[in-house]
Order: sequence, then structure tokens, then C-alpha cells
Amino acid sequence: MEESLRSQTERPVEFEDQHPKTTKVVVLRWGHRDRDKRLTSHVALAARALGASGFVLADVRDEKIKTTIEKIVKRWGGSFHFEMGKPWRRVVKEWRSKNNIVVHLTAYGENIQTSDVLQRIKATAKDLLVIVGSQKVPSHFFTKDVSHFNVAIGHQPHSECSSLAIFLDRFFEGRALAKEYVGSEISIASEKSKIFPPLKKNEV
Amino acid sequence: MEESLRSQTERPVEFEDQHPKTTKVVVLRWGHRDRDKRLTSHVALAARALGASGFVLADVRDEKIKTTIEKIVKRWGGSFHFEMGKPWRRVVKEWRSKNNIVVHLTAYGENIQTSDVLQRIKATAKDLLVIVGSQKVPSHFFTKDVSHFNVAIGHQPHSECSSLAIFLDRFFEGRALAKEYVGSEISIASEKSKIFPPLKKNEV
Repeated sequence: MEESLRSQTERPVEFEDQHPKTTKVVVLRWGHRDRDKRLTSHVALAARALGASGFVLADVRDEKIKTTIEKIVKRWGGSFHFEMGKPWRRVVKEWRSKNNIVVHLTAYGENIQTSDVLQRIKATAKDLLVIVGSQKVPSHFFTKDVSHFNVAIGHQPHSECSSLAIFLDRFFEGRALAKEYVGSEISIASEKSKIFPPLKKNEV
Repeated sequence: MEESLRSQTERPVEFEDQHPKTTKVVVLRWGHRDRDKRLTSHVALAARALGASGFVLADVRDEKIKTTIEKIVKRWGGSFHFEMGKPWRRVVKEWRSKNNIVVHLTAYGENIQTSDVLQRIKATAKDLLVIVGSQKVPSHFFTKDVSHFNVAIGHQPHSECSSLAIFLDRFFEGRALAKEYVGSEISIASEKSKIFPPLKKNEV
């Protein structure tokens, strides 16, 4: 049994080839406060690692988060657009003016598991702006003026980070996790020696 | 088009019936520090909402997180076990002594997307302890003494919250999002009026 635990059946997937080039996802983070620093950083990193091509921290500026994200992009490669301070209304307006789609993640939306909402989003074949908020978003977010789709990652309280991750994982059908990042300074996948690092002597 | 955006094709799924009763998942959070309060709360809530039956905050105690989780369970229903302060070694030892499986989520593990690691975990048909750590976990976690499986939710840096969410979503094949919670004081799914809340006058 132990042998099979260690087998590494790699099935490389070409992310860019399989994913339609026309579909791009940008994440809009609404309602960030100073105490959310780490959480918002995690949301932005999840956006990047799960296939989004950019992140907008709406309405406010947070230099620390910007630095964190830019450092990660520099070290780990790929292209990822980070923007902050722009009012959310303007981001949404510009996005919609290009005939793109706005998806609002909310526990009050259509359940991604029990409804056909994901299929309908995919069927549009348009670029997506995914809004992740906090508990108290303006009701306006739910209206057709803002969101084409209100999507619930279940109806239980959890996290904008877990909600976004599941939405992106399902939207991209997991392919983002197999993506190769161009121009990285470090890469775990290519450093086989770093997989299962050896136990150091006397360690814990 | 607008009509189809609003259609609510519900396909209810019986969580308990479809999921084998023998497979239970408990999440072990390692390396929690005081600054992680909100993040650890989100990880615990993600664990609950995505199908885990319990959460262990290892080695340290944090009354605020305990209160948050207990309040959510009371209001939103279902059963969810929360424990804190127990040394991680003891949790792992007790878990393994019952012939159960330990899964360690780490960017240095086998990629859940490109390997067959998830199939091999499911094939054990055993209860899982899922360890989520921080960037610097003890190397010991990677060894066979601790973890039967080291699983990477991709090899890029993101978040223990997004990693756990994707692992659980894939492990339970999304069924947790359709689960009904017994004994809840509030429920979004049953309050149809709360789906797409009406816009308040003069709001934002």
C-alpha cells in the first residue's frame, strides 16, 4: 500500500490550449477594511492561483497588499494585474460597457451545486468580473444594474476566499492548478527535490 | 436573455444518502498565531460549510474563534465539533491508532489536478484528518509517520482557506453545498424572500 501512496501519475494539462482565449476572469474585492489585510491578500492569491488574470481592490488603497501580490507575481511568474482605489461603480460600469458579464458571489444567490447557474454563465462565453464582498454588501449588488448573476457557493456562511476558490475551480474545471507560470524565479513543480523535503535532524 | 439569467432550476441532492456514512473528515489547523484570528475562523467555517464534521485548533487556545464557530453552529444548524489546545502530535497519533488516514495539504505534495492522489485517498474509504498548516510546517509533517498523503492544491502560493475548500469540494464531489442543516435558527435556502433582497430606497 505504501508504494501506491507515493506513485506520481502525472497527467499534464495544457491550460492555455484547452481554455478558450476569449474568457478572462477579473476579481473585484469590495468592502476591504484595514483588519482584512491578510484575508484580502489570501483572496488575491487565490484569484491568481485559481486562474483569474487580475484583481481590483475597490474604493480603498492598501500598499501592503499591493507589495505582497507584486512580490509573489515576480517570484512565481505569470502575469497578474493588480489595481486598487478605483470606485467599484466605475469598475463595474467599464466592465459592462464592454459587453462583459458581472458575477456576484453571495450566499443569497443561486446555488452553484443545485442550479444550472454555472452552465448559464459559461454559455455566455464572455469575460467575467467576479465580485467578492463581505457580509453586508449594498443591496444594489444584487440588481440587474450591477450583477448578471448572483451565485451562492452554498447557503452557509464561510469565506470569500473559499467561495472564490470553489467558483474558479469549477469555472475553469480545475485546469488552473495544472498551469505553468512563465518567467518564475522559483517553481515547486520543477524542483523535484523539494517535493517531500527530507526530515532535518532533531527537528521537532 | 435576462429571463434565462433568473431561472432557478433546482436539483436537490441528498447529501447524507449519497455520501458513504463511513467517511468522515476532520480538519487540523496547525501553526495558528494571534494575527491569524480571522483567517483561522474562515478556515473553520469553510471546513464546516464544505462537509467536514469537525475542526481542531492544534497546540493553542483561542476563545474568540471558539465563540465565533459555536455561534455559527447554533444559528445555522447541523453538528460540528470544535476542539482546541490539544498538541498536534496527540491528535495525529489518536487518529492513526484508529486506522484512519492523515492528509496533509501542502504546495509540495502531489498535485490534486494532475495526479491520481484523490482517487487513491477515496479508495481507502477511511476517515480523514486533513492537516492545514502555514508556510513553514515542520518537515516531519511530510513523512509517513505523520501523513499518508501530501496533497498540493496546485503548486502556487495561495491560502489554507482556498486549499481546504477545493480539497473538500472535490473530495465530497460538491455534495456538501446542497446539504440541509438540521436545527438551524436561520436558513437562507428556506427563506425565498431573502434571495435577491430588494433594493432599499436611496441606498448607496
